[in-house]
Amino acid sequence: MAKINPVSGFPEWLPEEKLIEQFFLDTVRKKFELYGFTPIEPRSIEPLDVLLSKGDDKEIYTLRRLHEEDPSAPAEFGLHFDMTVPFARYVQQYRGHLNFPFKRYQIQKAWRGERPQEGRYREFYQADIDVINEGDLPISYDAEFPQLIHDIISSLPTPPVCIRVNNRKILTGFYQALSISDAAGVLRVVDKLDKIGASAVIGSLKDELGLSQEQAELCLKLGQIKSSDLSFVKEVQALGYSHPTLQEGLDELAFVVAASQSLPQGTLLADLSLARGLDYYTGTVYECNFVGHESLGSICGGGRYDNLASDDKVKLPGIGISFGITRMLGYLFARKMLKANKSSPVTVLVALPSEEARLEAITIANRLRSRGISTDVNHAAQKFGKQIRNAERSGVPYVWFFTQGDASSYELKDIRTGEQTKVSVETWEPKPEDTKLQVSLNLEP
Amino acid sequence: MAKINPVSGFPEWLPEEKLIEQFFLDTVRKKFELYGFTPIEPRSIEPLDVLLSKGDDKEIYTLRRLHEEDPSAPAEFGLHFDMTVPFARYVQQYRGHLNFPFKRYQIQKAWRGERPQEGRYREFYQADIDVINEGDLPISYDAEFPQLIHDIISSLPTPPVCIRVNNRKILTGFYQALSISDAAGVLRVVDKLDKIGASAVIGSLKDELGLSQEQAELCLKLGQIKSSDLSFVKEVQALGYSHPTLQEGLDELAFVVAASQSLPQGTLLADLSLARGLDYYTGTVYECNFVGHESLGSICGGGRYDNLASDDKVKLPGIGISFGITRMLGYLFARKMLKANKSSPVTVLVALPSEEARLEAITIANRLRSRGISTDVNHAAQKFGKQIRNAERSGVPYVWFFTQGDASSYELKDIRTGEQTKVSVETWEPKPEDTKLQVSLNLEP
Repeated sequence: MAKINPVSGFPEWLPEEKLIEQFFLDTVRKKFELYGFTPIEPRSIEPLDVLLSKGDDKEIYTLRRLHEEDPSAPAEFGLHFDMTVPFARYVQQYRGHLNFPFKRYQIQKAWRGERPQEGRYREFYQADIDVINEGDLPISYDAEFPQLIHDIISSLPTPPVCIRVNNRKILTGFYQALSISDAAGVLRVVDKLDKIGASAVIGSLKDELGLSQEQAELCLKLGQIKSSDLSFVKEVQALGYSHPTLQEGLDELAFVVAASQSLPQGTLLADLSLARGLDYYTGTVYECNFVGHESLGSICGGGRYDNLASDDKVKLPGIGISFGITRMLGYLFARKMLKANKSSPVTVLVALPSEEARLEAITIANRLRSRGISTDVNHAAQKFGKQIRNAERSGVPYVWFFTQGDASSYELKDIRTGEQTKVSVETWEPKPEDTKLQVSLNLEP
Repeated sequence: MAKINPVSGFPEWLPEEKLIEQFFLDTVRKKFELYGFTPIEPRSIEPLDVLLSKGDDKEIYTLRRLHEEDPSAPAEFGLHFDMTVPFARYVQQYRGHLNFPFKRYQIQKAWRGERPQEGRYREFYQADIDVINEGDLPISYDAEFPQLIHDIISSLPTPPVCIRVNNRKILTGFYQALSISDAAGVLRVVDKLDKIGASAVIGSLKDELGLSQEQAELCLKLGQIKSSDLSFVKEVQALGYSHPTLQEGLDELAFVVAASQSLPQGTLLADLSLARGLDYYTGTVYECNFVGHESLGSICGGGRYDNLASDDKVKLPGIGISFGITRMLGYLFARKMLKANKSSPVTVLVALPSEEARLEAITIANRLRSRGISTDVNHAAQKFGKQIRNAERSGVPYVWFFTQGDASSYELKDIRTGEQTKVSVETWEPKPEDTKLQVSLNLEP
């Protein structure tokens, strides 16, 4: 057989891994619904101009029909690179049919033609929640997201989360107070503080953006402020600059930090270097890491945007976050950090005593299925030892034996313990842990 | 606001419709697992040569990075147009890691650049199950699929299903007995019998494929045989031709029909005109319609393929079917044939008595959430009448009232009945029908 190579950046899981992905997606979805978010699923494509108008260049994949009438015509559509841009378009398009504040979740794949590396894929699952309102969107929504992020990550078999939070108004207000005109440029440089270090930030601010030594140092000092409580407010004030936008940002961030004090120590951190790359954020921004696994990068991030879905006539401010499901799983799978109690959805394998008994085996399987028990029939009348090994290999916990034509002959073997007991097709119940997938974090793989 | 137009062929549902789609996908998935299928999810793209090597031209969408280094280089990859071709490639690629017979399901989107019309989309959900084995795959698998299709469609709020079944060996064996060389060509023409009628079939067979009048009439006669029991065997024999492949097909189809006699009358029909367009089928083929809604076309189809995943060294025969989820939903939504008991996942809306009481409202919501009750907090301290209307508009059945600082003040209003009762945040339980989405078929919309 010709060897088939994987396609770089397009990860594929084995069946037992896909079961775990399913578990992650189901858990996240359930939590989203618990917090009042409703699902939507916009199409996978957007007009290229919509994709290109929103912030960063995301290495878009364009789409063309193979049998395009005019093969030289430029592509009209591309695959979406996130959930937020299609969501904003969806809200504009269907506004008359939606109830505001509109709280929606989207769990879909996105595509980016970036250079693949660990944690960065060309095809990946994102799980997003956003709220968009007509008119104003209270700051209390900004304060609820850390609780929700913490709740979701706590319910997944992952390391704990550290949520870094900031408010863009603090940064842009401060830069305005310093009479810096290219606030967006400074944001982008300061955002890299963790990656490139203080002196490189100073260098970039001076050489690339033309800031004075004093301006650059002040921007750096602001970006170096971190606190898990409200002390960041005084530290910013101590820098000695004021501006209405700066003050608004401080008030908003203080509200968010104060409302999150019930979270476990270390979960929330005000980090004034945080800016997030996307141009559309206008206030609160979040970025989350697995504690002790910072090299993976952000596993969840987002923020508030006032103008993404708004137009000249209607103000539609929003706030949202996105969980990088594939990024988490790629990292955890590669390190064998996830352990599941099952590697198959099947609970019972009905052993086939002879080819003639197949109809009876299928009848037994269908009766168990009608009672909600996932059942399979061995594909051939092999020796029983071989049929038991089939169950073992597939991760099926029970094998059902019978003698053709004799309902009193039914016996069930738990292949984990070797125990074999008489059973009835009408009353036997698996234990809850036999049917429910449980995934745990394995810190010493 | 500039009007945003839909993109033809890329359907998008409103939130209450997406909830119903979710219900369909969840139901199908649960049934797949009940019958012993395990999930996989291959990437959305395949190399173009893989896509182009398998059967029909499917109007493939090709993919390119917008910033491709060499914009004139031909596209390498396309979006998959079905689940079967990626599955066959997946089995070849990961064979050493899989257990055979490998029973898998895939619920994913597929893309085809065909001209959109009702029931035909450019982006759509397919839900597929297939079994692939190393070596031989017993005919009993062919016989189990009708039971499974019937079980799945019965568990969805749709019209009942009619499963038409045939075996390609009957057709190709019969054509060989008639010394017709272009069996594939004849298959394609006879497959259209229902659409174009008997005289057009005769015409095409003679004019396009060069068959004699007698050959054409015999092909037509074979294609006109239909029966819900085993009588088709005698009807074929009465045509007076025999061939080993024809006999094999008759035996296999008889086995499938005999095994399905416990299904409700009208569910299964042997239909000897059925061929299915895809070249890769080699034995049993299925095609299913909603009874009374034949104009929609096939809502589920598939069959057996011996050579899709096989290569020179290893025989990997398979059988599978595909449910056209988007096709079903597009049709049922357009006719308002589906009725749900809920239009939101939220069960309780906590009314906000004042802005100052917001923290308490969030605490109430979080306590209900911690007990698994999906809860939202009204976004603003509006008049209670307005907050109740918000719940009504969003399809939320209960509104929770409280006076700030007074846990004994909790009252819950069922906005469907108007009934209001004293409740506790620790003990109140919604009725199961308040939390579980139920969708029913509405035959007189």
